[in-house]
This record gives sequence, C-alpha cells and structure tokens, in this order.
Amino acid sequence: MPQLGLLHGRSWAALLRQLLRPPRVVCIGAVYSHSQVVEAVLTSQLKPHQEKSNFIIKTPKGTRDLSPQQMVVREKILDVIVSCFKRHGAKGLDTPAFELKEMLTEKYGEDSGLIYDLKDQGGELLSLRYDLTVPFARYMAMNKLKKMKRYHVGKVWRRESPTIVQGRYREFCQCDFDIAGEFDPMIPDAECLKIICEILSGLQLGDFLIKVNDRRILDGMFAICGVPESKFHTVCSSIDKLDKISWKDVRHEMVAKKGVAPEVADRIGDYVQCHGGLSLLEQMFQDPRLTQSKQALEGLGDLKLLFEYLTLFGIAEKISFDLSLARGLDYYTGVIYEAVLVQTPAQAEDDLLNVGSVAAGGRYDGLVGMFNPKGHKVPCVGLSIGVERIFSILEQRMKTFGEKIRTTETQVFVATPQKNFLRERLKLIAELWDAGIKAELLYKNNPKLLTQLHYCENMGIPLVVIIGEQELKEGVIKLRSVASREEVAIKRENLVAEIQKRLFES
Amino acid sequence: MPQLGLLHGRSWAALLRQLLRPPRVVCIGAVYSHSQVVEAVLTSQLKPHQEKSNFIIKTPKGTRDLSPQQMVVREKILDVIVSCFKRHGAKGLDTPAFELKEMLTEKYGEDSGLIYDLKDQGGELLSLRYDLTVPFARYMAMNKLKKMKRYHVGKVWRRESPTIVQGRYREFCQCDFDIAGEFDPMIPDAECLKIICEILSGLQLGDFLIKVNDRRILDGMFAICGVPESKFHTVCSSIDKLDKISWKDVRHEMVAKKGVAPEVADRIGDYVQCHGGLSLLEQMFQDPRLTQSKQALEGLGDLKLLFEYLTLFGIAEKISFDLSLARGLDYYTGVIYEAVLVQTPAQAEDDLLNVGSVAAGGRYDGLVGMFNPKGHKVPCVGLSIGVERIFSILEQRMKTFGEKIRTTETQVFVATPQKNFLRERLKLIAELWDAGIKAELLYKNNPKLLTQLHYCENMGIPLVVIIGEQELKEGVIKLRSVASREEVAIKRENLVAEIQKRLFES
Repeated sequence: MPQLGLLHGRSWAALLRQLLRPPRVVCIGAVYSHSQVVEAVLTSQLKPHQEKSNFIIKTPKGTRDLSPQQMVVREKILDVIVSCFKRHGAKGLDTPAFELKEMLTEKYGEDSGLIYDLKDQGGELLSLRYDLTVPFARYMAMNKLKKMKRYHVGKVWRRESPTIVQGRYREFCQCDFDIAGEFDPMIPDAECLKIICEILSGLQLGDFLIKVNDRRILDGMFAICGVPESKFHTVCSSIDKLDKISWKDVRHEMVAKKGVAPEVADRIGDYVQCHGGLSLLEQMFQDPRLTQSKQALEGLGDLKLLFEYLTLFGIAEKISFDLSLARGLDYYTGVIYEAVLVQTPAQAEDDLLNVGSVAAGGRYDGLVGMFNPKGHKVPCVGLSIGVERIFSILEQRMKTFGEKIRTTETQVFVATPQKNFLRERLKLIAELWDAGIKAELLYKNNPKLLTQLHYCENMGIPLVVIIGEQELKEGVIKLRSVASREEVAIKRENLVAEIQKRLFES
Repeated sequence: MPQLGLLHGRSWAALLRQLLRPPRVVCIGAVYSHSQVVEAVLTSQLKPHQEKSNFIIKTPKGTRDLSPQQMVVREKILDVIVSCFKRHGAKGLDTPAFELKEMLTEKYGEDSGLIYDLKDQGGELLSLRYDLTVPFARYMAMNKLKKMKRYHVGKVWRRESPTIVQGRYREFCQCDFDIAGEFDPMIPDAECLKIICEILSGLQLGDFLIKVNDRRILDGMFAICGVPESKFHTVCSSIDKLDKISWKDVRHEMVAKKGVAPEVADRIGDYVQCHGGLSLLEQMFQDPRLTQSKQALEGLGDLKLLFEYLTLFGIAEKISFDLSLARGLDYYTGVIYEAVLVQTPAQAEDDLLNVGSVAAGGRYDGLVGMFNPKGHKVPCVGLSIGVERIFSILEQRMKTFGEKIRTTETQVFVATPQKNFLRERLKLIAELWDAGIKAELLYKNNPKLLTQLHYCENMGIPLVVIIGEQELKEGVIKLRSVASREEVAIKRENLVAEIQKRLFES
C-alpha cells in the first residue's frame, strides 16, 4: 500500500506513535478539549450570571471551535489527504461559501430541506453550500470547461440534527477530488477508489472496506421489482438508510410513508439484503429478472470492468459489491461507493468508534449539464473524504492515551537570568526571527529564570539562548539544550549558524 | 530583513521570478482567470438562452471562484504568512463560519449593517462572522482562558459594495495573529508590528509604511477639541475615511451629517492633517492642549516606548506616527496601526495598484470582557493581513507578464506507444503511486504517443516512463526527460529508485 512522502510520512508516523503510546506526560488542561466545552454547554455549567442574565456564550448548534491541539491533528489529516490528491495530479480550486439559492435547487432530493439559506437583506437570494460537488459543477459550466481534475478542501453546512459523538456536525470540512471529462469507461472511476484506499491506508485507521454499487443497477432493480419510475428517487433515499436502520424499518417507511406496494417492497428486499463482492456480481449476471433491464446490465458490465482495473491497482480485496448501497443524493448516475471502517469484535463494543462511512462518492454525468443553458453534459466522477469522522476516531485515541501534543513549532527560547535585560533580549530575538528561526520570549520586563525554563519544558521548546551581563561583557551567548540541560558558551556572531546546525541535525 | 525558511524561501523566490520575468510561454486559456469571468458576467456574454430563460450562471455579488492558477498564488502567499506566524510561536485555531447573532452585536459600530444574517429557519438566530477577532474573543471568554497567542486563517463576510478592481470582496480571506494576556506594556504590540514587517518584506511587495496611532490619543484629541463623548465613535468613523476622501469631505460629513460644530471640526482638522513619525510624537508631547488629556498622555507615553522597542527590532524607519489614522471598529482601545504600500511615482499612475491598506490591527483590551458574564477582561493586541489585496497586486503582475504557472505537481507521466497497453500502464502507475511518486496517465484505452508527450510539455511534467511490447519482453522501462528528450532503458525493478534519485537531484 502507499507510502507517503518521506517528510510527511515521518512526521505523521511520529504523531501516530504519540497517539498510540501509553501515556507518559499527562495532558495539561490549559486549553479545554472540544468535548469538555460541549459538555459544559450541555450541562449548563456556563449558567447565566446575575450580572448579565440569559448570557450564554456558545457556538451555534452543531458547530464547534477547533482548539490548537485539535488543529494539529486536523492539519496532519488534511496533509495526508491533500498530498494524495496532488500525487494523482489534481489542481486546487476554491469557490465561495454561499451560492445563488437557485444553483442548489433540485440537486439534493429529500435533503434539500437541510440547506442553510441567508436572510434576504436586499439583493440576491443566497444559500450556504451543501457540498463541494454542486459548486464544482457550477464552476465547470460557468467557465465552459470540458475537463478538469481538481481537489477542493472546504467547509460545508447542513441543518441536520447533530449527533456529536458520532462526529456529525452542521458545519464540517470536506475534502473532494473529482475528475470531469469524456474518457474511456471506468479508468477515472478506478482511480477514485485507489485514492480512497491510499488515503485510508495512509491515515492508519485500521482495516476498511469500500462498498460499491451502481445507480443504474438500482434503477433497473426498482423497475423489475415494480416501482413506478416517479418513485425511484424516494425509494433510493429509503434504501440509503439501510446502514443505520434495519430492513424491517426501511420496508415500513417504503410501504407506509411512500406508498410502495408490500409485495414490491419484498421483492426489493430480496436484492438489497445481498452483499458479497465479485461473486455476487457474477450471480447478478445470471439473474433472469435483473438482466431484463438494459440499464442494470450496463451497470453490471461497468462494475465488471471496474473490478478488473481494481485488481491491476492491487486493491480488489478492499472492494465489495453491495446491492444495499444507495447514496441518496439526486445527482448520481453511475457507479457509487462508500468506505467504512471494519471493526474487530473488541472495537465494536466501543460505541464511540462507530463512525459510519469515512469516504464516499460516485459518478454524476448529468450535473454539469443542469447548469449549462443548452444542457451540454460533462461526465464527472469523484469522491469526498469525511474528515470529521476520521478526526473523531483520532481524537478518541488521543483522549484514551492522554498524550501531549505540541501546538507550536518554536525552536528557540530567549531567556535571561538578570533584571533589566529586556532590550538585549529584544535585539537578540529579532536576529533569530530575521534568520528564519522560530523563537519566543516572555512578554515581561523581568521574568524569573525558572519561569522561563519551565515555559520551555511545558511547551516542548528544545533550545534556550541565555543572555546576561557576563555574556554581554564577553561577547558570548549561552546555548542550553532543554532535554539534557547542557549549556555551552558560543560567540555571539556564531549563534545563528550554531542554532541552524543543531536544528538541522535534530 | 527576515529570511524565510530555506525551502519556502526558495520556492517562493522561484514563483516571484516567474511573475517578474518577461513572458516566454503564453498562458493557455484553458481555465479563465477570474477577471475574464467577471467581465463575461458583467458584459452579459452569458446571456440567457432560449432553452432556459433567465438562466445566468454566476457566483454571488462580490464573491469569486479561485482558479487553479490563482490557488497556486494564494497558497504561496498564505505559506509566507503562516510560516511567519509560526516563527513567532503562534498556535492554530478555528471557529465556525457563523456565530450566534448576539455575539456580533455592538462590536462593529457603524459597520454592523454589513453583517450577513442567516435566514430564521427555526432555532438559533445566526450571522456569518464579520472578522476573526470577535470569534477569538468569544473563544477566550467561553473557555475562560487568560492568555493565548494564536493565528487563524479563514474567510469572513461583509455586505459591502464591492469594488472588484481594488481587491475588495464581500467574501474574503483574513490571516490574523493575536496575543491575549496581561503582559508588560508594548512588548506584544511591538511584536505585532515586527510580524507585519516580516510578512510584507517576505512577500516582496515593494516598499511599505506602517501608520501608527492610539485610540486614547484620538479620544483625548476629540475631548480637547470639544467633541461630546457620545460622538467619539462616530467622529472616529469619519476620520477613518481620510485615506479615501479629502479632509474637506470628511469635515463636511462631520458637520452636516453628524452634527459636529464647524469650529470643533476645524480644531480636529489641525491635528489629523499632521503625520510625521517620531518627530511628530515629540511635538505632541509639547502640545499644551493635548497634554491636558490624561488619556492622550498615556497613549503618547506608550507610543514612545513602542518606538524604542521597534528601534531594537530594527524596523523603526518603517513606522510613522499619524494622527489621521483612526481605525473605525468599535473594539480598539489602545495602539492602532495600518500598513500601506509606498508607490513610486511611476507605479502611482497605474490605478490598479492602488489597493489601500495591506495589513492592520491594534489593541482591544475590552472585547473579551464583553463576552464574560462578570466582565473579566483579557487584554489583547493583534493584526490582520489583507490577503485579497496582496493577491490583487500579484495577480496584476501575472497578467502583465502573461507567465505560465504550474497548477499541478505531477513528476512522472506513464505513456505507451502501443495499442492495448492500458492494463500495463495501470499496473505501472499503481507502483509509482504506492512509492509516493506523483504520477498521471491519460484516461484513454489507446491514446497516441504524441498526445501523451504533448500533455507532459503543456503541464510541465519533467519525466515520462514509456512501456511497450519491446520493453515488456526485455523487462525494462524507458525513462524520458521531457526537457532534454533523452531516453534511457532501466530495469523494471530499478525504476522507482531511479525516479526518486532523479527527483532528488533536480
């Protein structure tokens, strides 16, 4: 499986080692973790005070701040993901947080109600983007582009009932990779699945499985089961819930709420309860009813070719054909997929680790055409990585092991044992900054030496330069290693070179 | 002045060289620049068609997409900025795009009308953040933190009348650095100014100047000129416009719209038309009226100390005390500053380069307390870099020189001269990806060799591996340098090592 770039791989591995090691240093609670804050809000620890009544300070429902500790983890995750996207030749793209409201209508089916609208303050009607896919399609159509391979990292907003422990938020970060353009069948699709494998392996999240299905097989299946075409989308939305609720409940929804005949629902049930990889694919090719559908046959044929390419990529064993997979979004037209983490029985006992899908995507050949005045189509296939869920897993590990993570990159601290040495410290630190060295000092006129050294230990700063009267007189600086507590005197003019040498070696 | 980290400095310098060199390769218009798109929208090239009437595809007013070319420039700018923030020991932080509406009220004075509200769809009333400062203060208060040095890169939204050529948008990116906590006077403030100098020097934008003033000097000046205290904020907002409109117009606004007595306005005029650096500071210390104000004296004293520290940092000559600087936001309480680019007469003729302030900030000691139920204060000082304006300048340079910028990082292209070699290409490219090499191929079953080689030249991919029947038989791969067109045969098992060696050397 993929190795990361040397440097990235190394620093990520170091972080993971930290996360996985038994605790040595207890995490200092100076900055509360998100969950503590959420708890505090939920349990109303931040009660309104007499002074300002009804004054509760919080973030909006379903949103959160990311603390410096969380930012470090988040950035490592994004680094692995974006490195992979660049490894596959993707260009970067950014779009506004909101779109004209009309750009988002008729794209998300039953989920449209979850779109955040902006208040009409005069001018255009606007909505916050719901995903990065529709803005990408809008961009392609607006610029009349025929092909593009792009990635996009950004926040999206959905007014869902947030279930915070599962890593579901109303504001969350998506990392998307998409290939737009007219190409030979299944080559870009196979690359999308390869990318998901590389990223999930690179993040070392444990074993995973990618379920694959095809919208055309689903539609064909609905047709031969007797679902009227007008109900394909709504039935699809019901099937999409099979990973969260039982077949019994899904069947009930279809029959009681969506008016599907009971015998039709049962016929669907026979299919969607099947999942079994390549052998199921072969079995479906033999299915006398399903193969009556031209659509379904096309889908089955493409999946067969896809599996051939996935075998060449060395990832076929990670992929499972699954008739119950039915991504609910309206815009999918071909192959669809969703990656889930496979838990060992021991892990499965821990509910918190049950985070659902961590990556998903599919083919949407009609979306760009919806934005083109003449309906010109640009076929697309893409994937989205569920950063928040991956983050939840890693945060859970951090909490379990209580490991301390460095939140700054400071290399050198400028200290003095003497009073009235602020001016000397300021001159010295400016020299370090100007040489590109990451340096800090305490913003006090006369801090105690011990306070300064404790700061270095707490913050994990490796080097201290110490300047005092004696050093000033002799034209030297003391350089101290925080770990070994060794000190050496260095000529002032050699200080920057010596620090750079030590940082390079470490 | 500051040097950047070796690697960053080098790649940035390379980009700048590209931007500054006379054109060698004409930019391929596959992805239109933002301005072209804006133009197309403005001149209605995207006219509604018969098929779908009134169907104009655009981004919301005052917003834009960033094309891959623009993303490369944007990321280089952010890299310089964030590297500097980290060099000064800042931690990362992220907050939601929207806040509870009440968190933003009474923070922005006259600008409050520019806040985007979300539609009331049931639940909390929400607004898009207007800056990153108020969310930071809310975070400090919510988590009961007493000190923190953090940076934050993120989008903010303001319903301003957008003047696109000046780089003013309704959605724009801010890069903020702030130091919160009780410290000895002017040390963090001086560091903020040092950071602005390092960043503007690092970005090589040309000569710049940082205007400095103090809210207490302004308030003292208003008091001794006879402005009633209730009008301090609104008069401040008028003065703030002095960089855009003339004193005559500002005076008119104060007298006609804000009810300031003409003689009071004239007294203010005597002061705010002064700017002159350190000598003006000395002059103000001798001013018999101004020194009657205790507030003003405090401000003058702090600025004197600030200039002493700035001299130690070696940046005093970049700073100018300027009584006309009056940052309009309500929350500033002490020193305020704003960096502007200093144009040569030749540059000044080009209106497009007149981009206003490129960085600004100040001290806001009361803001965190506004979120604390008991009003507990946490003094803060910080700065914000105007990325969009810096971006406008660099984009203008790009346009002028028409230079081609690589939008992907692909190192190796997998090609074949033969038909029916897709499967071999797929196996080979998976090997490269798994070794962390950035690689692409064409998504065609049988592309022409010339098409494949042209793709490499257009995209600036340096290496091509070529596999054909002959190579397959002999167990070798041809490795071709795109620049020199030299080809060598390499044993298949040595390919990855050879590529890594070449990439390391280049």
